Amino acid sequence: MTKRANIYLALLHYPVYDKNERVVSTALTNLDIHDIARTAKTFGVGKYYLVTPLRKQQILAKRILSHWRSGFGAQYNPKRKEALELVAISDSLNDVCKDIHSHWGLKPKTVITDAKVFKRSIGYLDLRKLIKEGSQPYLLLLGTGWGVTNDVINDSDYVLAPIRGDTQYYHLSVRSAAAIILDRLLGMK
Amino acid sequence: MTKRANIYLALLHYPVYDKNERVVSTALTNLDIHDIARTAKTFGVGKYYLVTPLRKQQILAKRILSHWRSGFGAQYNPKRKEALELVAISDSLNDVCKDIHSHWGLKPKTVITDAKVFKRSIGYLDLRKLIKEGSQPYLLLLGTGWGVTNDVINDSDYVLAPIRGDTQYYHLSVRSAAAIILDRLLGMK
Repeated sequence: MTKRANIYLALLHYPVYDKNERVVSTALTNLDIHDIARTAKTFGVGKYYLVTPLRKQQILAKRILSHWRSGFGAQYNPKRKEALELVAISDSLNDVCKDIHSHWGLKPKTVITDAKVFKRSIGYLDLRKLIKEGSQPYLLLLGTGWGVTNDVINDSDYVLAPIRGDTQYYHLSVRSAAAIILDRLLGMK
Repeated sequence: MTKRANIYLALLHYPVYDKNERVVSTALTNLDIHDIARTAKTFGVGKYYLVTPLRKQQILAKRILSHWRSGFGAQYNPKRKEALELVAISDSLNDVCKDIHSHWGLKPKTVITDAKVFKRSIGYLDLRKLIKEGSQPYLLLLGTGWGVTNDVINDSDYVLAPIRGDTQYYHLSVRSAAAIILDRLLGMK
């Protein structure tokens, strides 16, 4: 019996800040789709949602996905196909939560990383244990641009500390951050 | 006083296998340079070497680096500049080892990941402790294409297990694998 995946990812292209703290929709990045899908598949994530309200961006995402799922890419690289089958396109974070709710009969607990400390702050090991219990779905939110809006952070159920090394530099790509977070929560050590 | 970094990275574009197990030189990827440089900077890596014997590829790498270090990119994104200052271009793994040797008066111990178990296999936590001692330089080797040649694996001093989740899928991008390996060896938990 395969264990039912109870962790999900959403890469938010909206609502996020730009460099000047305006709320914007960012553009999709081809490699965010590929790299994070491969990471998600490696760690047994249930679904990886690309969230954008922009129709043209959704059409672009669909074109990329169909190339690798059923077009030339699927034959050229079947392993890539497997990973990209995890990807779903969604209009909003709200729609993502509804989709997970419809599978579980439960709203997912949302998880975000932020440098500030909140009452809902949780350590990686503690969240790892909660996920392992398996009875509750969790949705890890990843931002693009200059990060998700304060509203999204304030509405999230859990807050993880951002990934740091022993340096004053902490500007990982979202692809690298996603890989490390999933390894900490789900990796086999 | 800043601690002297005793861990280095090399991304090998040669000698690696292609899909049909022929030894080839792979092409540089722009995002391998950026993502892995940002990860390296976050975790306090001493230098990140791009290894390719191909002149044209070296010229391309230099052009990308100069854009971000001193061209328009340096002003547009100074944080990216900081990361890309870690990157060096090298003809061969041998030259990388000589460069590190010249700084330390010691050859670096090379580290690779491989699915097979060797006498030189070591756990992430044990290697983390060795690196922390600080007296010996370590060079983490990352492959491109279908992985580094058996000769490189056989010549390496330490072998780490590859990154796995609790699944049968293990096809992380080199960018994601690098992020996870450095977090395991150097991340602040």
